[in-house]
Amino acid sequence: MSDERIAILAHEKFPDRAKTALGVMRYGDQNVCAVLDRDRAGDRVRDHVPDIDDAPIVESFVDALAAADGEIDALYIGIAPIGGGFDESWRDDVEAAIEAGCDVVSGLHYFLNEDPELVSLADEHGVHLVDVREPDDDLTVATGASGDVDADVVLTVGTDCSVGKMTASLEIVAAARERGIDAAFVPTGQTGIMIAGWGNPIDRVVSDFTAGAVEDMLVAVGDDHDLLVVEGQGSIIHPAYSAVTCGIVHGSMADGLVLCHAAGREAIHGYESFDLRPVSEYVDLYEGLADPINETAVIAGALNTKNVESDKAAADAVASFAAEVGGPAADPVRDGADAIVDGIVDAGLGGE
Amino acid sequence: MSDERIAILAHEKFPDRAKTALGVMRYGDQNVCAVLDRDRAGDRVRDHVPDIDDAPIVESFVDALAAADGEIDALYIGIAPIGGGFDESWRDDVEAAIEAGCDVVSGLHYFLNEDPELVSLADEHGVHLVDVREPDDDLTVATGASGDVDADVVLTVGTDCSVGKMTASLEIVAAARERGIDAAFVPTGQTGIMIAGWGNPIDRVVSDFTAGAVEDMLVAVGDDHDLLVVEGQGSIIHPAYSAVTCGIVHGSMADGLVLCHAAGREAIHGYESFDLRPVSEYVDLYEGLADPINETAVIAGALNTKNVESDKAAADAVASFAAEVGGPAADPVRDGADAIVDGIVDAGLGGE
Repeated sequence: MSDERIAILAHEKFPDRAKTALGVMRYGDQNVCAVLDRDRAGDRVRDHVPDIDDAPIVESFVDALAAADGEIDALYIGIAPIGGGFDESWRDDVEAAIEAGCDVVSGLHYFLNEDPELVSLADEHGVHLVDVREPDDDLTVATGASGDVDADVVLTVGTDCSVGKMTASLEIVAAARERGIDAAFVPTGQTGIMIAGWGNPIDRVVSDFTAGAVEDMLVAVGDDHDLLVVEGQGSIIHPAYSAVTCGIVHGSMADGLVLCHAAGREAIHGYESFDLRPVSEYVDLYEGLADPINETAVIAGALNTKNVESDKAAADAVASFAAEVGGPAADPVRDGADAIVDGIVDAGLGGE
Repeated sequence: MSDERIAILAHEKFPDRAKTALGVMRYGDQNVCAVLDRDRAGDRVRDHVPDIDDAPIVESFVDALAAADGEIDALYIGIAPIGGGFDESWRDDVEAAIEAGCDVVSGLHYFLNEDPELVSLADEHGVHLVDVREPDDDLTVATGASGDVDADVVLTVGTDCSVGKMTASLEIVAAARERGIDAAFVPTGQTGIMIAGWGNPIDRVVSDFTAGAVEDMLVAVGDDHDLLVVEGQGSIIHPAYSAVTCGIVHGSMADGLVLCHAAGREAIHGYESFDLRPVSEYVDLYEGLADPINETAVIAGALNTKNVESDKAAADAVASFAAEVGGPAADPVRDGADAIVDGIVDAGLGGE
């Protein structure tokens, strides 16, 4: 999906609640021509997010097409509501995109390919509806084969959803490559898959195959690299999503874990009646779960300090987090992931 | 599915590797007319399992029909190989059943309803293919609503697959009812669903909805009983199945956990290169995972002593397991589950 000219739908949620949109804009090879957000139409991306390529924010797909002089290859659905449903208020934009000859790429649980109206319209206009969350139908249970791949495997794990595990993973890969390590990103979620152009959407596979779907990816690329960085999901203490987390922990058979947390987060995102636990409890739980299947430990931490204003306060938060994790830590966005790669290398991982 | 006259297919696996067949025979309301096992044809059920209703073991469905004077309502698939595939060597029996006007009930991952030959034959003969592992299509993510049901909730958790969690759950319900507690069994796997006649097959739901599928069941029946006993699955330390386990732990929001173990088990069933951990580690891990979402603890233990010969040795093993669990324990098959219900009542659960 690289070098496509795309528009990204992020109605009412850009940028703070548009994780998918931001991920593709920051890390993907696509050329983003416009962002659809009816609440911010008329603004520009740089008004809200200074460090990514700029683009206009528009009201509708029709406006996006006008802004791009008619040259758009695809519309990406850049937001993912809880439950993954399709918001009917998006339908006009999706239909306009199809009618303009654009593919539509979606990471929703709701499959565009199962929507008769959209399927029929897409057929008529000869475009593809790409549901990146639709898993391969040949997945099966894990066998333990992840333990046999040549590459060392690092997994990002979290204290919650939406703490920056995907970002940390991508920044770790970038920093490792800078250092000459042959590192690759292993996506497990819709945004990661949209960015990487391959991967199994772990939260959408049959639950019995959760670990197996991770193993399937590691076996596919594990002998081609020295370091694989697997994107973790959710949190092992979560009322809804811990199954996905746990399957990734065991399916990846990681040699090292990087614990990801958001500074100041005190309750589970979207489930605010549930408090987060002390960081050390997550370290103990992840190690207690993972180590019996493959010897491992938490070797570094990634702290998301997006909600911390000053660099000084962020640095203090990172230092305090590093102490809790018992290893080096960084905010991969503010600081880059070099300190985290130090932790990976110090643990003896990533060498040939 | 009660009072049906059924035959159960268990080729080459009866009784020791035919968990589904044995579960239905021991706990279901169905009337079992014959067991299909080509390796033991000519034997009788009581030659192998003395404490359940007897039936002939036969070579094929045709022989079963003859043994039952032509009166069979359904053929149940009573075995579930790793991966849940359909063994082509069973096809003749399944087709013979359909041709004889019988429904076919299966808990395989492979859906009979997606097999064109069987579907066409079933249509022709006006019978149903019942895939109990096919989940409802209206499941979604958990909201935490399990915490609000009136009933107290107990969950069986395990040190491994195939240690007797379903059996323990059913025996706990039976023993609690003996004592006048309004208790109900909440099935989560294919055999439990075949026995209970309702339930979501948790290992087959979309992994993001694992906890939600448990919550869906608890909300459905949680205000109608004083005690719900949720059938656990797998183990929280497992190379393949831990995702299912973890989703049930958080989806059930159990008020008490009963740890299930098989005496003498030293390695993970089917994954023998992975050692089991000390029992106390499972206690700590399950409590560490579950308690942050809903206050809980391991309140009793169920030890499967099927492979222990003498009653004395079994009693010693149970006593030693109780000490490791830190609560009362029993082998629910050998001893009944009364001691476990003591632990539940002592924890203040099951009252009105």
